[in-house]
Amino acid sequence: MDYKCLLADRTNRMQANAIREILKVVATPGIISLAGGIPSPESFPMDIIRTLTQQVLEKYKSSAFQYDLTEGFLPLREQISILLGARGINILPDAVNITSGSQGVLDAIAKLTISKGDKIALESPTYLGALSAFNPYEPCYIPMEMDDEGLVPESLELVLKTHVIKFIYLVPTFQNPTGRSLTLERRIKIADIIQRHNVLLVEDDPYSSLRYKGDPVPAIKTLAPDHVIYISTLSKVFAPGLRIGFYAAPKFIREWLVLVKQGVDLHTSTFNQALAAEYLAGKHMDAHLPRIIDIYKPRQRAMTDALERMLPQGFSCAPSDGGMFLWVSGPKGFNALSLYDKAIEKGVAFVPGHFFYTDPEQGLETMRLNYTMADVATIEIAVEKLCDAIRDMQRREKK
Amino acid sequence: MDYKCLLADRTNRMQANAIREILKVVATPGIISLAGGIPSPESFPMDIIRTLTQQVLEKYKSSAFQYDLTEGFLPLREQISILLGARGINILPDAVNITSGSQGVLDAIAKLTISKGDKIALESPTYLGALSAFNPYEPCYIPMEMDDEGLVPESLELVLKTHVIKFIYLVPTFQNPTGRSLTLERRIKIADIIQRHNVLLVEDDPYSSLRYKGDPVPAIKTLAPDHVIYISTLSKVFAPGLRIGFYAAPKFIREWLVLVKQGVDLHTSTFNQALAAEYLAGKHMDAHLPRIIDIYKPRQRAMTDALERMLPQGFSCAPSDGGMFLWVSGPKGFNALSLYDKAIEKGVAFVPGHFFYTDPEQGLETMRLNYTMADVATIEIAVEKLCDAIRDMQRREKK
Repeated sequence: MDYKCLLADRTNRMQANAIREILKVVATPGIISLAGGIPSPESFPMDIIRTLTQQVLEKYKSSAFQYDLTEGFLPLREQISILLGARGINILPDAVNITSGSQGVLDAIAKLTISKGDKIALESPTYLGALSAFNPYEPCYIPMEMDDEGLVPESLELVLKTHVIKFIYLVPTFQNPTGRSLTLERRIKIADIIQRHNVLLVEDDPYSSLRYKGDPVPAIKTLAPDHVIYISTLSKVFAPGLRIGFYAAPKFIREWLVLVKQGVDLHTSTFNQALAAEYLAGKHMDAHLPRIIDIYKPRQRAMTDALERMLPQGFSCAPSDGGMFLWVSGPKGFNALSLYDKAIEKGVAFVPGHFFYTDPEQGLETMRLNYTMADVATIEIAVEKLCDAIRDMQRREKK
Repeated sequence: MDYKCLLADRTNRMQANAIREILKVVATPGIISLAGGIPSPESFPMDIIRTLTQQVLEKYKSSAFQYDLTEGFLPLREQISILLGARGINILPDAVNITSGSQGVLDAIAKLTISKGDKIALESPTYLGALSAFNPYEPCYIPMEMDDEGLVPESLELVLKTHVIKFIYLVPTFQNPTGRSLTLERRIKIADIIQRHNVLLVEDDPYSSLRYKGDPVPAIKTLAPDHVIYISTLSKVFAPGLRIGFYAAPKFIREWLVLVKQGVDLHTSTFNQALAAEYLAGKHMDAHLPRIIDIYKPRQRAMTDALERMLPQGFSCAPSDGGMFLWVSGPKGFNALSLYDKAIEKGVAFVPGHFFYTDPEQGLETMRLNYTMADVATIEIAVEKLCDAIRDMQRREKK
């Protein structure tokens, strides 16, 4: 039969994630991959998982395996309420909702709010997973300018003056793909702007716990609580395979998001939520997080130093205090898409930054480098190979 | 701020599940609930969960906690391929996809295929969870006639002659809410009809393993493989809280469904998929399923017998060979919505069948009774209370 005629109109906007295709290529042996975007398995608290599962079985018995509330497993919501409190977001457990990864709430927000053609303002470049959540609902994207201090507030103000938008989507801290963060001054400005314009901000914060230097900065949610949906996840501080995301949203929105989730997956795995509750209740995260930082901090340092030493003139790396990525920009005219094949020949892979822009003309000179998956020595070799590939390309272009 | 203006048009079609509201009421102590629709926790294989988790930790180590393929965890897909083979559906592991409960694939199918106003043909009454998956994509429903042998094929044929539909949605075996099953003869007719009309069937099969009498009947998927998406779940034969669903679909559709799922939740919990793989690979399900049937079979029998003994004249219970529900119909003019409050007064709850119809005029005389959550003695008392309530109501109406 002809299956094509079954496709809904919205499928025009859906396509395979380009990075996913790149990741398939770089699984080839002999290639050092700086292309991935996942936590190191060394960062998972494998030493306590057995104990956690035993505690869950003893404490919750069969109820950890039964259907549960769409809102989330109450013992986990209690723990997340405490965790959010430590981030300055004070809400009761009843107001915390759990989702299947932060992807789950990105999909729900899009389903709840976006009618075809509605406008979403976002950082340029932005997180690709958010685009794959939003795209099926057929929005228009309004990209906003960033610099080394994150989103430029004037760019947001201009967008809000010239467009009616459904929401703003930001990753303010250690952004994927750039590793950049919004300064406190800018957060205050942005909180003021969204309140003045009465517009909703979706603040996606998967990385703020992975800080390797500098002082913590508050979430924008703490500065404009009624205008922000704050999203976070346990994927980077516990284990991504458990698929535990969570969010704090104004009551009206929260109740609708629960209704949306009910139709999508009924609820998130009860057993995994119970494991996460035990992980947090037992203060295991507090003990384990410094160990995760001990793994990543030297890797970030090694990559930053190697780039500083070896990058050819005209190239620069954006300053970053944490997360999983560094962002390299080349001089005008440099094309990271062309570099990609040459880098693979040298034995190193990365993601051309171009893919993170909604405007296909932008970002050709940029690259995203991940440092969580390789050790310090390997990172140094990888950066050397990458810089060799750049020099080779520049030499050939001069000829 | 005014949150209402943020809502997308599709929210007009989304509303709180009426049954969920009923279930909140019946959590009151002292009320016997036949209203639920969930497996008994006694049916979960709690005695082997600890062993399974230890096996997963030894065998898969940290990879059970890492991000994984959207398609599903390969060791589970291998096991599901074997399980499907035993149901006469022969597909390779690569062609098996895992979802977050069967709700996950219902949402994905709707997102993939339904443009606003597209028509879906379904049994009347039908499964409410499917409606909450489909509704946000704004379809029109074309209800089809059922009798004690399931969907009436002539009704399907008529619908296909008079409407262009996107897909047919059926629960052919031990349907929720009616407990009824399509006979083999009708399955053959329906397979023929959908192939002649070149139309897609979504065959939802959560219950076929829960058979208490009669011979197994093949899935329609086995009779018309290119025209059917076959959906099933481990929720009723392992544990619903783990949220493991799976499906077998034609290649073109399967590849699109994976793309849809990527935007919704990236993938289903790796750890839970690994647990399920061990459950199946260790033949634990083969050993455990007879124990589940030993729990439910006497309960179904007790309810059937009690209804036969006690239901007033004019009332009947649909024949059912398995699953979790019995379906009672009263005489014309009987209103199960009015009975509901009287039944609560007597101390028993059920779901008025009305809620399972897309046409608000239909099903007023029907009731869904669940028998998985109460023991035999309690079921007998509950049926007695229910029949008392009916008689009281009839007496009052005669006055």
